[in-house]
This record gives sequence, structure tokens and C-alpha cells, in this order.
Amino acid sequence: MTNGRRPQALLVMDPPNFSMQFQEPQLRRLRGLVELEEPIVTDDLDAAHVRRRLREVEVLVTSWGCPRLTTARLADAPRLRAIFHCAGTVRTFITEEVWRRGILVTNAADENAIPVAEFTLAAIIFAGKKAPFLAADARAHREDWSYAARRGELSNRGRTIGVVGFSRVGRRVVERLRSLEVTVLVADPYADAAEVSAAGARLVPLPELLPRCDVLTLHVPALPSTRHLIGAPELALLQDGTTVINTARGAVLDTRALERECAGGRLDAILDVSDPEPLPATSPLYDLPNVMITPHIAGSLGSETRRMSESALDELERYLSGRPPRAAVTADDFMVSA
Amino acid sequence: MTNGRRPQALLVMDPPNFSMQFQEPQLRRLRGLVELEEPIVTDDLDAAHVRRRLREVEVLVTSWGCPRLTTARLADAPRLRAIFHCAGTVRTFITEEVWRRGILVTNAADENAIPVAEFTLAAIIFAGKKAPFLAADARAHREDWSYAARRGELSNRGRTIGVVGFSRVGRRVVERLRSLEVTVLVADPYADAAEVSAAGARLVPLPELLPRCDVLTLHVPALPSTRHLIGAPELALLQDGTTVINTARGAVLDTRALERECAGGRLDAILDVSDPEPLPATSPLYDLPNVMITPHIAGSLGSETRRMSESALDELERYLSGRPPRAAVTADDFMVSA
Repeated sequence: MTNGRRPQALLVMDPPNFSMQFQEPQLRRLRGLVELEEPIVTDDLDAAHVRRRLREVEVLVTSWGCPRLTTARLADAPRLRAIFHCAGTVRTFITEEVWRRGILVTNAADENAIPVAEFTLAAIIFAGKKAPFLAADARAHREDWSYAARRGELSNRGRTIGVVGFSRVGRRVVERLRSLEVTVLVADPYADAAEVSAAGARLVPLPELLPRCDVLTLHVPALPSTRHLIGAPELALLQDGTTVINTARGAVLDTRALERECAGGRLDAILDVSDPEPLPATSPLYDLPNVMITPHIAGSLGSETRRMSESALDELERYLSGRPPRAAVTADDFMVSA
Repeated sequence: MTNGRRPQALLVMDPPNFSMQFQEPQLRRLRGLVELEEPIVTDDLDAAHVRRRLREVEVLVTSWGCPRLTTARLADAPRLRAIFHCAGTVRTFITEEVWRRGILVTNAADENAIPVAEFTLAAIIFAGKKAPFLAADARAHREDWSYAARRGELSNRGRTIGVVGFSRVGRRVVERLRSLEVTVLVADPYADAAEVSAAGARLVPLPELLPRCDVLTLHVPALPSTRHLIGAPELALLQDGTTVINTARGAVLDTRALERECAGGRLDAILDVSDPEPLPATSPLYDLPNVMITPHIAGSLGSETRRMSESALDELERYLSGRPPRAAVTADDFMVSA
């Protein structure tokens, strides 16, 4: 329930994303909450007609492709009070000036975490069975099934899963792992042991986690401090046959070091992200049967992106009815989040 | 709690399976419940020393590799009262004579269904993202990511999953799908609509299910009546881009018909079983990027097989304390179960 007030609003995102995230139902709902005028959507805040429109708007509904909200651009939007972002990180476009002006910012990072956690659960289950690697073997060895015996135990029960980062995605992965009979270890310098324990896992230091896990899955943001968090020394601590899963950001894993371990056959990997991304055509990782590479698809795509626009509409509705936001972003979040 | 009675027992299974399913903890527990004498385990019921031992035993603990319990062999076991099977189907070795003698038979089919359901959930999530097929594309196209756009929407939210067979595995798959935001349809002529509905799905006739699903997953036993249940006419009813998952039995799916649909690129497939199995080296399915083949690994392997031996020990414990069995097999089950 809103109080009937319908503020002026503008959608700021690239056109393909607008078509994907604002289909008929979402657009109808948006029109019921705010006033939209031409242009209703743009990804160019510097065009003259957009600058005129900006002067009137109280609300921006943003998504992928929103340009950086510089001080100059914000000067064009004197009435701007709230930004509802229909995607994960706002790092790409929010500036100090937004915080200085006290503008409300919400994101849909929680919703964005859902498909990544789902994908990661699937990757963990398949890793326990070595399924992606056996599928590559099957293409090469066909009806000679002796390849299967070389891949170790092929089971999930009793495995130890190492989750690095008790982040939005990391937490959801831990939760979903409750459906398996596995031991879950979490490493995260910022996490609370009691909270990790309540989620069904155990918080341990990274050097203790690494040698114990059968599957290692990364859920940390790309920050200067997390660059190559998993490098050659960390990979060396993993047991033979461990599968490394990266659905987070390429740079948290040292690609060269991983290449060496996978090429030698000691470690296996499922990589939805890489550094660089895409991997150059010359990367040896493409050819290894014990490496599965997907083109950054774990996150929200297609219908999954509407989970995020719908959650932004929920936030907008709360804003209009004077209720507190569920997923407000603060200046401090910038330091430790994705 | 048992009443302290320790009957004579014999393990009947092949040696590698015995080593896998009866490690130190399981063997210790078994020795606490029954009397074992040499030989404690065999897969040859016709050897003279085994026939002598059979005369004394009240309990058989069986698993993969148990020879057929023919009338002649059963004549060697006049005191036999109960058979606790540490695996799924008992169809391979139980005979009419077992039922005629009123011998209790239990299986671990419920426990065997767990890893298959886990694997199938992973396959469904990966199918929604077309992950296995994109991984094959990545090997071929490398850094040119244009291949991803050709695979359709790459999302799981709002998908319709068609589950054929509300069996032990099928039910568990339906349950696990509750963690996704998907619509689940079930086709099974023997299932109860209210039960399917309580599980979070909707029971529909197969011809109605097929054209509506994005992912089709098979969970029916191999019986004369289910041979080629999904043949050319059924595959033709599927929408373009549907992924067919088979973790059940190869013969329920017409391999030739599937080959044609997958080679043409209209359908994708994830096959853990096939007909014949393994597929001959000449099968075109091995080469298709939109087909993932694994060597029958979804079921219990390694540590997962001990879930079954432990459940058989639970049944043995119930038997000894006079409690009713949880998973007794009856002659009637033979007609409709795996």
C-alpha cells in the first residue's frame, strides 16, 4: 500500500536490459507507482532531453548500463531522493556525491545471489561425481569406461566442501548444502562463528580449510585485498583430486597457478568466471578434460533478471508507503562488498 | 535395542563391493548384531564350504553380485528367515521360492534414490543454464562468446520441469525442486494427484506434459511396458530447446530418435544411462556439443553405497528387536518397481 503519491521517475539502463527486466507485468506495476514521461528509459544522462527530464525526477530505477552518477550529472537532478537498482553491485555508477546528498540507494544483490547459489550447488554435486570431467572423458574414450575408475570415488556423501567467503552467495550455498550429507567449512575473516554455525557450517581459518576440502568454492568480491586470494601457495595446500569452483570473480584466483595444477591433473576446476575474461584462445585450460569453463552465466540472466526488477519495485513500493527499505546500500558497504 | 539374540548370518556380494560397503565401522556394527563365521562373505553359493555354512544361517546380508536364489540353493538354507539387501533392486536374485517360503526381504532402494535425485537436481539446474553445452562450446569457440547467445535464455526461474515417473527418485527430485522457482509437472499413470500436489507439483497426462516443459527428466523403471516410453512421437511433442535428462534406465528412451533430435540441434540431452550401455563408439551422441554423457554414475558409488549398507543394518536391527521393517519388498512390488 502506498499513500497515493506518485513521484516522477526515470529508468536508467541499457536498452536490451530494459526489454529483459521490464516486460509488460513489471512495466504495468511501475506505472502504477510512479509518473513516467518521455524518455521513460535512457542510458545517456548527458543528452539535452534527458537532462531536462532529470530536473523533475525524484526516483531513478537503475540497472546494468547506468552511467556513473558524477557530481555534474547529479547537479542536473536537484529533486533526486532515491535510486532503486535492479541488479547487484552499485559500485559501477554510485559516487561519493550520492552519499553526501543522502540519497537512498537500494540494490537487488540478494536476488542476484540466488541463481549463483543454485549454479554453485549444481557444480558442487557434479564435482562430487566428477561429472563434467567424465563427460569430457566420454567424448575421448567413448565405450571404454576404464576412464571412470581413474577419477576417484565419484560420490557426494561425506565430502567436505570448503566455502571461501560467507557472502550473500556464500551463505546461500551453505544453506543449500544442508540438503546433502556433507561437511561444510567456511573461511571468511569478517564472518561470525556463531552465524556460520547456525547456518550448518564451521568457520575455520583459510589455511586450515584448504587441506581438508574435497571441493573448494569461492564467494568473495573482487577487491584489491582479495586479488589472488587463492594463489599457488593456497592451491598447493589442496588435496589431490580437489575440484576448485569459481562463480565469483576471476581475479580472486591466480589463473596461471591454477593452469599448472590442472594441467598436471592434480586439481580439477569448474570456472564460470576467469581472469582475464574471456580466457584468451591460447589458454591451456580450454583443452583440459578436468576443467569445465562456462561463459559467466551463473548470475542472473533472462527471467532471473526480473527477480531483481521485481525486488526493486518492492523497494519502491516500501519507499512510497514510508516503510524502511530491505536492501539499502550504505557508503560503508563499498569497502567489503561486491 | 535388540533382545540379545544373535542369529547366524552370511554376507553375499562380490568382493569389491564388500570392501566398499563394509568398512571397519559397518563390519563392527554387523558383528555386534549377528554371528559371522568363515566364510563371512561370498558370491558363490555353490561352493561346498558355502553350502555347509548356508545350512546354519538365518540371515543373508546381500548386495550387488548376489547369485540368484534358486529353489536348489534355497534348499541348502533351511533356516533362512530374512534377507537384508544393501542396494536397490532385488529383482536380479530374488525368486518365487523366496516369497513362497515367506522370507522377509528388505532393500535400500530409498537410500539408493538419494544420489540419483541429487545428480538430477544438478542436471536440471545446469540444463536451465545450458551449462554442459556451453562448456562444450567453450572448448570449440574459446574467447568468442557469441556461442552463448545461440543457446537461448540461460535461466532457471520460471522454467517448467517435466518429471516422468513419481517413483522413489522422481518424488525426491520433485521435493528438491522446491528450492527453485520453477513449475513442476509430473506424469505417472500410477501416481495419486493429491500426493503429487502435496509434493509441490501437478499430475498431468504425458501428452500434456511434453509440450509444456523446458526440461524433461525420466524416473521410470525399465519394464517391458516402459520400453521406449519416450520415443520419436513423444520427443516430437517437446518444444525446441528442451533438455532431456535420463538418469533412470537407457531403454525407456529411444536412442535413435533422440540421436536424430539432438543431431538436428532441436533438443539437448544429459544422459547418465543409455541403450545400449555404454553407447557404441560409433554413436553420434558422443560428438554433439548439446549432449552430455556420463558413465552411469548418478546412483550410489563409493561412500554413497555405505548409506545403503547402513540402512540394511538398521533393518537388521529392527528385525532382531521384533520391530516391523521400513523397506520390506513384496512379490507385488516386482510388477511396478525398478
